[in-house]
Amino acid sequence: MRPIEFTGTSLRLLDQTLLPGEERRLDCTTPEEVADAIRRLAVRGAPAIGIAAACGLALAEPGDFDRAASLLGATRPTAVNLHWAIERMRSARDDGRDLVAEASAIAAEQARCDDELVRHGLPLFGEGERVLTHCNTGPLVTGARGTAGAVIVAGWEAGKVELVWVDETRPLLQGARLTSWELGRAGAPYRLITDSMAASVMARGLVDRVMVGADRIAANGDVANKIGTYGLAVLCAHHGIPFHVVAPLSTVDVATPSGEAIVIEERAPEEVTALGGRRVAPDAADAANYAFDVTPAGLVTSIVTEAGALRPDEVAQAAR
Amino acid sequence: MRPIEFTGTSLRLLDQTLLPGEERRLDCTTPEEVADAIRRLAVRGAPAIGIAAACGLALAEPGDFDRAASLLGATRPTAVNLHWAIERMRSARDDGRDLVAEASAIAAEQARCDDELVRHGLPLFGEGERVLTHCNTGPLVTGARGTAGAVIVAGWEAGKVELVWVDETRPLLQGARLTSWELGRAGAPYRLITDSMAASVMARGLVDRVMVGADRIAANGDVANKIGTYGLAVLCAHHGIPFHVVAPLSTVDVATPSGEAIVIEERAPEEVTALGGRRVAPDAADAANYAFDVTPAGLVTSIVTEAGALRPDEVAQAAR
Repeated sequence: MRPIEFTGTSLRLLDQTLLPGEERRLDCTTPEEVADAIRRLAVRGAPAIGIAAACGLALAEPGDFDRAASLLGATRPTAVNLHWAIERMRSARDDGRDLVAEASAIAAEQARCDDELVRHGLPLFGEGERVLTHCNTGPLVTGARGTAGAVIVAGWEAGKVELVWVDETRPLLQGARLTSWELGRAGAPYRLITDSMAASVMARGLVDRVMVGADRIAANGDVANKIGTYGLAVLCAHHGIPFHVVAPLSTVDVATPSGEAIVIEERAPEEVTALGGRRVAPDAADAANYAFDVTPAGLVTSIVTEAGALRPDEVAQAAR
Repeated sequence: MRPIEFTGTSLRLLDQTLLPGEERRLDCTTPEEVADAIRRLAVRGAPAIGIAAACGLALAEPGDFDRAASLLGATRPTAVNLHWAIERMRSARDDGRDLVAEASAIAAEQARCDDELVRHGLPLFGEGERVLTHCNTGPLVTGARGTAGAVIVAGWEAGKVELVWVDETRPLLQGARLTSWELGRAGAPYRLITDSMAASVMARGLVDRVMVGADRIAANGDVANKIGTYGLAVLCAHHGIPFHVVAPLSTVDVATPSGEAIVIEERAPEEVTALGGRRVAPDAADAANYAFDVTPAGLVTSIVTEAGALRPDEVAQAAR
C-alpha cells in the first residue's frame, strides 16, 4: 500500500510505529484521529505531517474548522509544514473552496515537488558514490517519492550511488526501522550503523556525501532537523565531505530569522531510557530528549529545493 | 557486592550483561568460564579484562597454562591490557611464582593506580563543571574506583563537578545501563542522552569537558576506545571543549606505532539490528558493527595516567 491515501472521507496511513515488523493500515475519519496519529508518530516527516493535517481539516465537521486547526497545530512544535498546510486550508475555507479538493491538491503538489527535488539533486552525484543519511526521508515522509531519500534512490537507479550508509537514528530508530525498510523495498544496497559510527566510517574514507531532510529552515539558511544532524554536519566539515539538505520550499520559514528562534521539541525521557518497551537505564535515571537540532547555514553545502540546489542564503528569497 | 572478587579458586564477577535490572554474581572456576565471561561481555572494560584474564590463568590446571593463555588471549582483539596481563602471568609462571598471588597483585595494583588517576585528574576541574562521558569507565571496569569515571565521581565529591552528561553508547548501551547505574550508586547527578545529542548539548554551551577511557593507546598517543569516542573528539575540537582520556599506562601499547596499526574488533551485526532481543531493522538488513574507533593524538587535550596528566606524545616514554 502507499504510505498516505486520502479518500475524502478517510485518511489511510501506513502506521509507521509498526514498521518494519508489520505493515498495518490506520484509518482516520476525524481530526482527532489524525491529530493522534501525528502526535504518536504513526505519520511523521515534515511534508507528510502537513499533508495529514490538511486531510484532517478536510475531515472536520462544518463549523468545527477552527477547533480542529488548533488541535492539529499543537501536535508537533518544530515542523513548519504543519502550520503552512493549516494556513493554506484556512485560506481555502475563507475563500469557500472545497476542502477535500484542497487537501488532495496539497498531496499532489508534494508528489510533483518530490520529482523536482530529484531532478535538481541527481546532478550532485559523481560516480560510485557512498552516501550517508540520517533519520527517514523517503516515500514515508511525503507519501510520494520523498526528499533526500528520493534523491538517493534515484542516484542508485541512475548507477551513480553504490552504497547508502543508514544512521539508525536514536532514540526512535527511524533509520533502522523506516529508511532500511524503504531502501529494501527499492532494492538499493545499504548498511545500517549506529549514529556513533558515522565519524569512524567517514575517517575510513567510506563516505562521499551526506544527504538529509529538514523539519524547518530559517530565513538565514539554518536548518532544524532530527537530532544528530548537526553533529553529522560538524563531522562533514572536519572530513571535507559535502553536506546537503533536501527539502521542499514549504519547509522554509521566512518568519524565523535564524536557527536560534526555532522551538526545539523536547519529547518524553522514556524514549531514551527505554527501547521497545524495555527499560535500558536504571529506574531513577533522568534523560534529556531533544527531538531536533539546528545546523548553522555555514555547515551546509547546499539545500536542494524544487527551485534548484541553492546556497543556504538563497532559500528565503526562493521561498518568498 | 564488588564488581570483581578473586578467592584463588573462583573469580566472582558482577554479571554486567544483566545490569541495571539485576545484580547477579557469576562464579568462574575455570579458564573456559572466564574466557566465556570476557567474550560475552559479562566482564568488560580494558583493565577489568586484564584482571579477569590473569585470574583465569591462575585458575588453570598445572600444565594447562599455555592452552589457557591462548584461549583467553583470543577473546577480545583490541584491549591491550589482556595481553599485558597474560604476559605478566607467563613471566610469573616462568619464574616459578605463585599465580594466585600474582593475579591478586595485578588487581591490587590496579586499585592503587585508580587512586593515582584520581589524584592527577582532579586538578583539571574548575568550578561548576558539566562533564560529558561515553561508554563506561567506573568501578565496573577496574574492580576498584575506575578510570575516567573515578575522576568524574571524585570531582563531584570535591564539589567541582555539578552534572555528568552520559552518552547512552550504542549499540550495547554501556552508558545507559552501566554508567547510569554507577553514578546512581555514587549519588552523582547525571542526565542520560543518546550519542547523537552530544553535539547539540555542546552547542548549547552545556558541556565544559569530555572525559573518556581507552582500550589501547598507540606509541604516538592515538587512542582506541569505544565507538563514538572519535566523533566526540571532533565535536570537542569544533566547540573548543577540552577532551581528556583517563587510562592506566598498561593501556599504552608501545609496540603499536600509531592508531592505524590497531586492530578494530568488528562484532556481530545483530548488536545493531536488534535491541534487547527485539529486532528493530528489517530481517534482510545488513549492518556494520565496529566496536571501537581511533582518536588521533592531535584531538586529545591530555591523557591522565598514574604518572600524571600527560600530553599524548608523552605517554609512550612514561610507559617504557
